[in-house]
Amino acid sequence: MEAREHEISIRRPDDFHLHVRQGPLLAAVVPETSRVFGRALIMPNTLPPVASPADVRRYSGEVRAAARNQEFEPLFAFKISDRSAELWSAENLREAAVEGMVAGKLYPEGATTNSDDGVRNTDELYPLFEAMQRAGTVLAIHGEEPAAFCLDREAAFLPRLVRIAADFPRLQIVLEHVSSKEAVETVGSLPETVAATVTLHHLMHTLDDLIGGLIAPHNFCKPLVKTPADRDALREVVFGGDPKFFFGSDSAPHPRDAKESAHGSAGVFSAPVALPALADLFEKAGALDRLEEFTAGFGADFYRLPRSRATTTLLESPWVVPADIAGVVPFLAGSTLRWSVSAGPG
Amino acid sequence: MEAREHEISIRRPDDFHLHVRQGPLLAAVVPETSRVFGRALIMPNTLPPVASPADVRRYSGEVRAAARNQEFEPLFAFKISDRSAELWSAENLREAAVEGMVAGKLYPEGATTNSDDGVRNTDELYPLFEAMQRAGTVLAIHGEEPAAFCLDREAAFLPRLVRIAADFPRLQIVLEHVSSKEAVETVGSLPETVAATVTLHHLMHTLDDLIGGLIAPHNFCKPLVKTPADRDALREVVFGGDPKFFFGSDSAPHPRDAKESAHGSAGVFSAPVALPALADLFEKAGALDRLEEFTAGFGADFYRLPRSRATTTLLESPWVVPADIAGVVPFLAGSTLRWSVSAGPG
Repeated sequence: MEAREHEISIRRPDDFHLHVRQGPLLAAVVPETSRVFGRALIMPNTLPPVASPADVRRYSGEVRAAARNQEFEPLFAFKISDRSAELWSAENLREAAVEGMVAGKLYPEGATTNSDDGVRNTDELYPLFEAMQRAGTVLAIHGEEPAAFCLDREAAFLPRLVRIAADFPRLQIVLEHVSSKEAVETVGSLPETVAATVTLHHLMHTLDDLIGGLIAPHNFCKPLVKTPADRDALREVVFGGDPKFFFGSDSAPHPRDAKESAHGSAGVFSAPVALPALADLFEKAGALDRLEEFTAGFGADFYRLPRSRATTTLLESPWVVPADIAGVVPFLAGSTLRWSVSAGPG
Repeated sequence: MEAREHEISIRRPDDFHLHVRQGPLLAAVVPETSRVFGRALIMPNTLPPVASPADVRRYSGEVRAAARNQEFEPLFAFKISDRSAELWSAENLREAAVEGMVAGKLYPEGATTNSDDGVRNTDELYPLFEAMQRAGTVLAIHGEEPAAFCLDREAAFLPRLVRIAADFPRLQIVLEHVSSKEAVETVGSLPETVAATVTLHHLMHTLDDLIGGLIAPHNFCKPLVKTPADRDALREVVFGGDPKFFFGSDSAPHPRDAKESAHGSAGVFSAPVALPALADLFEKAGALDRLEEFTAGFGADFYRLPRSRATTTLLESPWVVPADIAGVVPFLAGSTLRWSVSAGPG
């Protein structure tokens, strides 16, 4: 990190958990990430899902075309299903890795958006996990047990995480968008093959911000933001510079109507504000010198990718978050952020 | 209770906590209650509030005019503020009681809809509580400490409840819309001057029904529905026939746009479904014989009102809850209820 008066420059950051959807929405939201981040791991829960090698190639083309910044490097995960062991071998996993396909994403059935085709029984996936372990493909997990009470779903999933980690000691595993004290502790206690992504909104919010005042569907996500104690546990490891915890925004745009509804979708569209809002948070915590490792260091190391040599500059120049971007209400819409990202190509 | 095949008749029930708002919305929603319930205690958090003896008379006229059933007897609460001790004496409290003004409603500042003018310091209300105690006016409390974490607000209020009950041993106090295990236990442990109302939605729902699947703003209320353990505590005392816990719907209509919004209002419009849905619930719990005491016995006794001599008949005749009533989405909209209320004047 380089700091001058009124600006800081950090290695160009990575977002290790990002949803960009499909079609016109994808075209509109990819630049929000590509103008700030050097790489982003794009989630595969589209309709139909990104499941096969051919799906990854097709989706990769769509995402690259939408990034106006040609140096932006999208990374991909295939969506794990009961069919995945037929589609993927250690060999084609290695081949796909060359084109940025670095992870398989596991969704328990019914855990979140477009996960009705998710996995019921992880034991049946052991041949796939074996191939992934051999190929060096990361297992990225939405770690919630959907049958549990909503606030307990992540904690209820942890025994499965512990078991997979024990059964595949060389498989690299990321518990995505970690949200609870229990999960922070479990990830901390497991070997260094197990890490976690942390979102901006889980670092900022608790249930007070979702249902404590008026109900705020634009702050609604899975896993749920939780209690102050849960948020404090996240802040402690993140602001403390624990390398097992790195940034993944889980930015997930839904059109306004799908949120402001009798039955609103889960997902927080944080990509447009992620880096400046993180700078605010880290600064308030007296940890601004840890921002670079969290966003541009630990994640790249875990994924065995080179740390970026490019930089992104943050200016101490307040801006008001727009009320709407491409029909989607961004996270923190209408609020004023202290830091902004120096302009660049989208 | 009288039960025949496919129907049951109970004493005409009372709703000891009801919001009917003002103007055209009031005119539309009052009949939803008056066609089923014999009495309802109407809450005073209108704009401006129902605060003075003159306000009560005016509001009473408006509510009575809207009830198409002339036997419906609205009861009223004045809204407690720092000015209440000037407006109310034991004498005019007694006079107002003759016209149905049976309670004063205490809202901590900021606790719910239209409570920005609520009370900060209950100690300053002691002269009022003294007058209410002498006049036999019930103190109805929205028992939440707004500064606490949202799920802890009710528990955080309980020490204040305990103190008021100790300082005014003859003042009758109702902790409204009780929602937590801690509050159930505290009310249970206090003298019989302290009781609680219980809503339909707190008996039915947990956070799973609000934010466990898609986010459901029409199920959003204050206090929040909470955990399965909290709901079980409510069910235990209600299905067990504890006379300290009686029905108050807290039915609170908001226009659809105020709910399906970036910042949705708190309030569940349950009046149109309350009695049939309670019958469903009590039946499933094997406690149908307790429905009458909960809805038409304990509350009247606590308020020292005669138990109704009229009856309401429930038919085992399924119906689908409408999607919309006067621009408001009712609780359980679209679902099929096993029981329906025999038709009568609104």
